[in-house]
Amino acid sequence: MKIGVFGATGYAGREIVRLLGTHPQAEVAFTTGSSAGHVPHEEGLGREADAYLLALPHGISATYAGKLREAYPKAVVVDLSGDLRLPTPASYKQWYGHDHPAPGLLQGTPYGLTEVYRDRVRTAKLIANPGCYATSVLLPLIPLLRDKLVDASDIVADAKSSPSGAGRTAREDLIFCEVSDNFSAYAYGRTHRHVGEIEAVLADAAKAEVALTFCPHLLPVKRGILTALYLKTTRKAAELQDALRRFYAEAAFVRVVEKAPQLQDVQMTNDCLMSVHEAAPGRVVVFSALDNLVKGAAGQAIQNMNVALGLAETGGLPVTKVAR
Amino acid sequence: MKIGVFGATGYAGREIVRLLGTHPQAEVAFTTGSSAGHVPHEEGLGREADAYLLALPHGISATYAGKLREAYPKAVVVDLSGDLRLPTPASYKQWYGHDHPAPGLLQGTPYGLTEVYRDRVRTAKLIANPGCYATSVLLPLIPLLRDKLVDASDIVADAKSSPSGAGRTAREDLIFCEVSDNFSAYAYGRTHRHVGEIEAVLADAAKAEVALTFCPHLLPVKRGILTALYLKTTRKAAELQDALRRFYAEAAFVRVVEKAPQLQDVQMTNDCLMSVHEAAPGRVVVFSALDNLVKGAAGQAIQNMNVALGLAETGGLPVTKVAR
Amino acid sequence: MKIGVFGATGYAGREIVRLLGTHPQAEVAFTTGSSAGHVPHEEGLGREADAYLLALPHGISATYAGKLREAYPKAVVVDLSGDLRLPTPASYKQWYGHDHPAPGLLQGTPYGLTEVYRDRVRTAKLIANPGCYATSVLLPLIPLLRDKLVDASDIVADAKSSPSGAGRTAREDLIFCEVSDNFSAYAYGRTHRHVGEIEAVLADAAKAEVALTFCPHLLPVKRGILTALYLKTTRKAAELQDALRRFYAEAAFVRVVEKAPQLQDVQMTNDCLMSVHEAAPGRVVVFSALDNLVKGAAGQAIQNMNVALGLAETGGLPVTKVAR
Amino acid sequence: MKIGVFGATGYAGREIVRLLGTHPQAEVAFTTGSSAGHVPHEEGLGREADAYLLALPHGISATYAGKLREAYPKAVVVDLSGDLRLPTPASYKQWYGHDHPAPGLLQGTPYGLTEVYRDRVRTAKLIANPGCYATSVLLPLIPLLRDKLVDASDIVADAKSSPSGAGRTAREDLIFCEVSDNFSAYAYGRTHRHVGEIEAVLADAAKAEVALTFCPHLLPVKRGILTALYLKTTRKAAELQDALRRFYAEAAFVRVVEKAPQLQDVQMTNDCLMSVHEAAPGRVVVFSALDNLVKGAAGQAIQNMNVALGLAETGGLPVTKVAR
Repeated sequence: MKIGVFGATGYAGREIVRLLGTHPQAEVAFTTGSSAGHVPHEEGLGREADAYLLALPHGISATYAGKLREAYPKAVVVDLSGDLRLPTPASYKQWYGHDHPAPGLLQGTPYGLTEVYRDRVRTAKLIANPGCYATSVLLPLIPLLRDKLVDASDIVADAKSSPSGAGRTAREDLIFCEVSDNFSAYAYGRTHRHVGEIEAVLADAAKAEVALTFCPHLLPVKRGILTALYLKTTRKAAELQDALRRFYAEAAFVRVVEKAPQLQDVQMTNDCLMSVHEAAPGRVVVFSALDNLVKGAAGQAIQNMNVALGLAETGGLPVTKVAR
Repeated sequence: MKIGVFGATGYAGREIVRLLGTHPQAEVAFTTGSSAGHVPHEEGLGREADAYLLALPHGISATYAGKLREAYPKAVVVDLSGDLRLPTPASYKQWYGHDHPAPGLLQGTPYGLTEVYRDRVRTAKLIANPGCYATSVLLPLIPLLRDKLVDASDIVADAKSSPSGAGRTAREDLIFCEVSDNFSAYAYGRTHRHVGEIEAVLADAAKAEVALTFCPHLLPVKRGILTALYLKTTRKAAELQDALRRFYAEAAFVRVVEKAPQLQDVQMTNDCLMSVHEAAPGRVVVFSALDNLVKGAAGQAIQNMNVALGLAETGGLPVTKVAR
Repeated sequence: MKIGVFGATGYAGREIVRLLGTHPQAEVAFTTGSSAGHVPHEEGLGREADAYLLALPHGISATYAGKLREAYPKAVVVDLSGDLRLPTPASYKQWYGHDHPAPGLLQGTPYGLTEVYRDRVRTAKLIANPGCYATSVLLPLIPLLRDKLVDASDIVADAKSSPSGAGRTAREDLIFCEVSDNFSAYAYGRTHRHVGEIEAVLADAAKAEVALTFCPHLLPVKRGILTALYLKTTRKAAELQDALRRFYAEAAFVRVVEKAPQLQDVQMTNDCLMSVHEAAPGRVVVFSALDNLVKGAAGQAIQNMNVALGLAETGGLPVTKVAR
Repeated sequence: MKIGVFGATGYAGREIVRLLGTHPQAEVAFTTGSSAGHVPHEEGLGREADAYLLALPHGISATYAGKLREAYPKAVVVDLSGDLRLPTPASYKQWYGHDHPAPGLLQGTPYGLTEVYRDRVRTAKLIANPGCYATSVLLPLIPLLRDKLVDASDIVADAKSSPSGAGRTAREDLIFCEVSDNFSAYAYGRTHRHVGEIEAVLADAAKAEVALTFCPHLLPVKRGILTALYLKTTRKAAELQDALRRFYAEAAFVRVVEKAPQLQDVQMTNDCLMSVHEAAPGRVVVFSALDNLVKGAAGQAIQNMNVALGLAETGGLPVTKVAR
């Protein structure tokens, strides 16, 4: 299979190219970007491929997705930006502050949280790849909400991420001397854009309204997100752990572990590891860890592409050998 | 004033010596430790001073505190270990796993959270210096619980600390290649020793039972703790902010700020900065930041010593100039 | 004394303000910069002060220096940029690539390597503050070359610096994910701008032509430069060590130590530590360490200002207590 | 092929296991170590395999190598320790401070710098895997000395390494708070153990005595060594670059590049990248970069094993695709 990669000079795009280099059934046909060795984005529109992975900025990405869908209706398009993750143009405007660039694409485009929506992804030609924070929050929460094991009306998510999630961007607040040996919260409360997509997906899972407090933090690490979920429940941690184990029994990349996962357990992998622990009475804490550039971006995009193309889901992705 | 510093080779002890070097009214009379340039701990017991600061391991520290109290009844002793922080020998055994080394010292020894218990510290000869995590949780919480502005029965504290809190210890899990570029939770749920001292002090402030979920994390930074408190309340964030501002109106080292404080705002200072923000309905998030080696250990110990000796509270401590 | 600080929002400027906050005889009268709390640079020209410290970009700084000299002929001006460090307009153009903005200022402006040129600084109204790398190379080399103890024609300097030397600048190659967990050489061979000022000063010290190989590297640390000098000599390391000890016998901030100094020995101090060691026959290695923002910029600027104003040389600067 | 890995819990051993997980023709038969999931070292001696990779401490490793050679004469043994790298028991005692544990093994055991000694490795059953620093110094130097392009009597090597080279060891000087945000030289001059093996190999290449000044430094990074070689020569940098290009024309893992290589170019790869640049007249600087745990340890060990077993040299090793 021939794959076109749009935006191959950023961290996510570069990671896609790196991973596809190990894919047994797919290869990079071309890459777009503004530096030497890449074709301009516009030129990429003229190149036929079996699949296109778009690591472009939001507000621009959907336009390219629309043009590729039109030109190559048989090809699979995976959009890594936030453009196609929200259910309606109105919610997009609420969270992104401008009109949606291609509102016609929203309807019917599955949210590519592969383990949860695999059936929708399988038949899709256009897929919205989830946000990195959203993946870390949703993978542990959806099974628990679907089974009504935790209270949807009082969810607290305290998330910590590498600045690589902000991309390869010359911003003063991202330079080494501002991030190293420092730690900070940002977009706290309910203001981060991922809150929109998380709540939309959770409401669907819970069949009820959800209330989410979400506080992201900037960690001085190169890769990885660790999220702590503080959940209200009348059940024991062991019961929740079992529910998660059952839900992900067949998943190659999601595993429930006994001790809280660390970033170094997941860096450079497509894994999402999670654990459940007792806390104060009526509360449990759930940890989830993933590599924001792999499972949180490039890896999940390739996983979605594999499913939509009918390839082995794990192609091009590192599989951790574990005794189950 | 002549000050004796026990345990001057660890991170907290070294910080005490560094800070006392700038004290206008006090100077280091001797330091104890096992390396060159220090006298052995035992020898320190024979040296008279106006105050003794003990940066010794728990289980040992209280024994030294008792001997110093006996030999020099007019001197002030500040114990930085956990030995004197818990109210009863039974709670000590519960959290530290062994019998208390000097149970007779527990009664009447104030918990030296200076801004909160200044009156008790002023007249004390023996002071229990609070834990670093405990200080970061208690300073913002106590005023809110005293005024019954938040729900004591559902407190979530997600804390992140430098490994310097574990001291200068040759432990495999603390070596550079295990901590750098990594992030991990530990002692999650309700198992960290500081939970004992935090809950004892909070129960006193709330005049009610409290339920605390406390999850500490290990950050790849050299200094600092940032804690996020997720609190249930029927009030607005602004009202809580006002209450904190009033409580700390006269405090030289505690300040309520508008944006969430970062570690770099407090590193190398004796400040504790805090902020309050709206979250999901019925919830607020409160951030507090401090330098675990200064306000969380050496700085607060000197602050307590100053108060107990009748010196200016800020002597030997960096004071941040701010427009109020 | 009233001090005006131009360019107070960058790392060097901010450090000047921090240090002056502890100065017993001087205080910040105003600061210039483009963000809130500072006056515009132009406006600063209208404010009289006893001294002006210019932490402005090269190419701009000399123009401000000239205007301040004209308007306030009794005031002391210390320029932290590279504008006044080279002896001639021609050498400036060679290293900076453009014409000198104020060639008339070059003549008679001392190179403010305080310990070496204190007498010239004492009577100067305008002082060129040395570069950070240059300071780390020159302080150990000058005494050795003056005494003809090492071969001037074959000097190798391998230097490693924090990226804070590049300032608080939004550059893609300076963002956390490019610098952290990485290490790289740049401007190697003889291409770094500091080579110009180093060679000019060394030639003066050696009274001979010097040949310098200089390779700077970017370290993932927030502060500090460690330089290794590989020198050809017929003498023993101990003899060179003695020569350095004699030269700096009275210096408050320069010390010769036995073991190679580390960055953590000098961070947050105005010290330059150096050591000399045997290497292969006919070679010694000399290490020098300093904090690039203090002794390499803000601290040395204040030291020069103190000398030129007739104040105690150590005012506003941390003095490390050592047994000599 | 079945591979036994001795000492699989340290950094090098763990890396061997990780890499063998991707080997198309070899698999881990057993691992030894003191923690759960590994068999004790002694027990490993009883398990037959096609090859054994020993990541054991020096002083112990050679004893195991000897026993395995005796018990399984057809098997290939690669020793990653320093035990078999020096030519004579006397030189071993000089550098390691104790008698050689198995002096009979020294004779005829090739030094496994694969690209240089491939022919000797091909027919060997026992191979001494080179040290990490040694590999970074020798790969660029050997071709230049063989061709007499540089002066063997005046070689300066300034090397910077991750502390992972010291292994997963609970040492106070290796804990995060001592290494992070710090940088230090150690074993400077001519005292590091690798000087012994480097000089022995260089003397063989130069057919002359060599004089090496070698200064290793500890970098706050998780992986990688960058070495700067300052060499005396009458040739142009371009001529040396050509010589290196010719020597490594067929090498899968060694490449000569235009700009100085950075650590991030080689981390997680088995590559050694090198570059040559003009310096002061009569001097060039040569940079070489590699991942100390891969090309400097586990990767080169697998490369040697592949060659000795007659497998493809690149099996189990990441191959960087480059346009040549």
